[in-house]
Amino acid sequence: MPELRQDPASREWIVFSTERAKRPDQFRTVTVREPRPAYSESCPFCGGNESQTPPEKFAFRADSKPNGPGWVVRVVPNKFAALVPRGDLTRRHESGFFRKADGVGHHEVIIETPRHDLDLATMEADQIEHVILAYRQRYNQLKKDPRVEAVIIFRNHGKGAGTSLIHAHSQLIATPVVPNLIRERFEAASNYYDDTGRCLHAEILEKELEVGSRVVDENDAFAAFHPFASHQPFETWIMPKAVRASFGSIRDDECRHFASILRRALYRLHEGLDDPDFNYVIHTASVRDENQPYYGWHLQIVPRIMTPAGFEIGSGMTINTSLPEQTAAYIREIEVPEAIAVQ
Amino acid sequence: MPELRQDPASREWIVFSTERAKRPDQFRTVTVREPRPAYSESCPFCGGNESQTPPEKFAFRADSKPNGPGWVVRVVPNKFAALVPRGDLTRRHESGFFRKADGVGHHEVIIETPRHDLDLATMEADQIEHVILAYRQRYNQLKKDPRVEAVIIFRNHGKGAGTSLIHAHSQLIATPVVPNLIRERFEAASNYYDDTGRCLHAEILEKELEVGSRVVDENDAFAAFHPFASHQPFETWIMPKAVRASFGSIRDDECRHFASILRRALYRLHEGLDDPDFNYVIHTASVRDENQPYYGWHLQIVPRIMTPAGFEIGSGMTINTSLPEQTAAYIREIEVPEAIAVQ
Repeated sequence: MPELRQDPASREWIVFSTERAKRPDQFRTVTVREPRPAYSESCPFCGGNESQTPPEKFAFRADSKPNGPGWVVRVVPNKFAALVPRGDLTRRHESGFFRKADGVGHHEVIIETPRHDLDLATMEADQIEHVILAYRQRYNQLKKDPRVEAVIIFRNHGKGAGTSLIHAHSQLIATPVVPNLIRERFEAASNYYDDTGRCLHAEILEKELEVGSRVVDENDAFAAFHPFASHQPFETWIMPKAVRASFGSIRDDECRHFASILRRALYRLHEGLDDPDFNYVIHTASVRDENQPYYGWHLQIVPRIMTPAGFEIGSGMTINTSLPEQTAAYIREIEVPEAIAVQ
Repeated sequence: MPELRQDPASREWIVFSTERAKRPDQFRTVTVREPRPAYSESCPFCGGNESQTPPEKFAFRADSKPNGPGWVVRVVPNKFAALVPRGDLTRRHESGFFRKADGVGHHEVIIETPRHDLDLATMEADQIEHVILAYRQRYNQLKKDPRVEAVIIFRNHGKGAGTSLIHAHSQLIATPVVPNLIRERFEAASNYYDDTGRCLHAEILEKELEVGSRVVDENDAFAAFHPFASHQPFETWIMPKAVRASFGSIRDDECRHFASILRRALYRLHEGLDDPDFNYVIHTASVRDENQPYYGWHLQIVPRIMTPAGFEIGSGMTINTSLPEQTAAYIREIEVPEAIAVQ
């Protein structure tokens, strides 16, 4: 019997379709990824090729000079920026009806390593911690721009997840409007707060830990689980135990724990599904709402296993062929080495 | 300069990214589609293979018997149904918090032709009219089931659009909850009605016809345009001039005009983009709202040209690389033959 489950964070209904069910190990990708050299001459993100990108906005580097080699993590404007930091945000109208404005904002690339052959799933936790520290630095910097309403930090891994450059990188887009999905999730959370006096995301975390069967990992500061109403097989949420609305408020010690649990989650997807295409995104309150008690920031990993089709476009509902209890059980079995040997 | 545009029907903001702009003809697909025979022994949707599907729910046929050959359009339950017409809709709770119910509903396949080698873009308008009449019959039949809250009619064309069977078919899912996207669109429309006293969709149609530069086709009963805030390059909306909330209310003469404009729209995408993957969906009010004056049903064609990635997942906003004025100008130039020779 198929089952309907409601995502408490978005109020979306997900259809768990048992007629189409697969075993967790049947989701292994068939994508063959080419082995990559440590350095590629034509890659703008490789160490040594800094002149191929626009001048950097930020970097972690020891003694080296900006826009030269010697960095650990480097942040540059996206060369093909979707939004740009100039223009007029006044709404204009076409025929007194259609609403538009200039595409004002920021679009940056966080280059996660100078090395062409590494990826988050196979990096040292220390390197990932620097990536997260760079996210935090850029978040807190860009939110100071009065034109910015929201900062979306995300990562596209693999062609099926919308990436064009193979070198490990994340992106960040700062928008001059509150995106509708952020508004909707915030509204669900504030309604919940009004009804119950509790933070919706704190409740989700508490209940997932209580049920337990979907939890895949936990450390002092974070938990990882396959959510009750997952949109995709193996969808994973990582939530801090100290629930706060804004990712920008993440503490130093939390960054270390976040890096550790994120590395383990990505390593297990990499091993368990043979390096699948995936996206991840940090859900965080919009800039003006970042001190509200309603919301809890978290990271959502979405493997690109099933293709959303006409039903999803027309309804906003999703058909998922695997229960999160089953995918979580499969993932928990995968052992993660303490440190990964970098060749 | 990139531009932000708001979709008046969903209130979503779309980023038109000029930095990544392509010329319309650069969107031609590189997919090579195998030529198909008129009949395939292993295809459950081919005329003559009726025993390979569950018993039919409806068919247009001359004198022939149900579940035998001789039909024009045939409707069968989906063998791998996402929702099934049995079970209990009472909401249950896990840990007193997570909400679920049985997956009750209907999931049907509308087989658009007994022939394996035809597709909507290359069919006769008369055949497409029968497909639409079948949509209407099923819509009006299924809405009588008191458990049904909404009926979503959609079509997936090509692997990138989520289809697994190549034989021309559409699908229909009747849901026992109002899908959140339908609620949101209805709310946008009812707010607009409260503010202005007018139907939002009637206004959209009127303004698109007034502006004109995005209109690609028009007949006595319908208009087709690339909407002001299109999500994808070449996204096309087809709207009836007699605006009514429910697709189920489409009149016989409208079905003929709808078939004609739909055939022309799909033919032009097929020619102009070399048979791209696409989805289409009929947006219509939920069953309990189908007599409200706020809403106007319409068909949305979404070519699968760009891959939604982390930014889209995190924000609900979309980055589009082409302005609809440009794609519409390209599409309008494509001549459509009056009748297509069926071999």
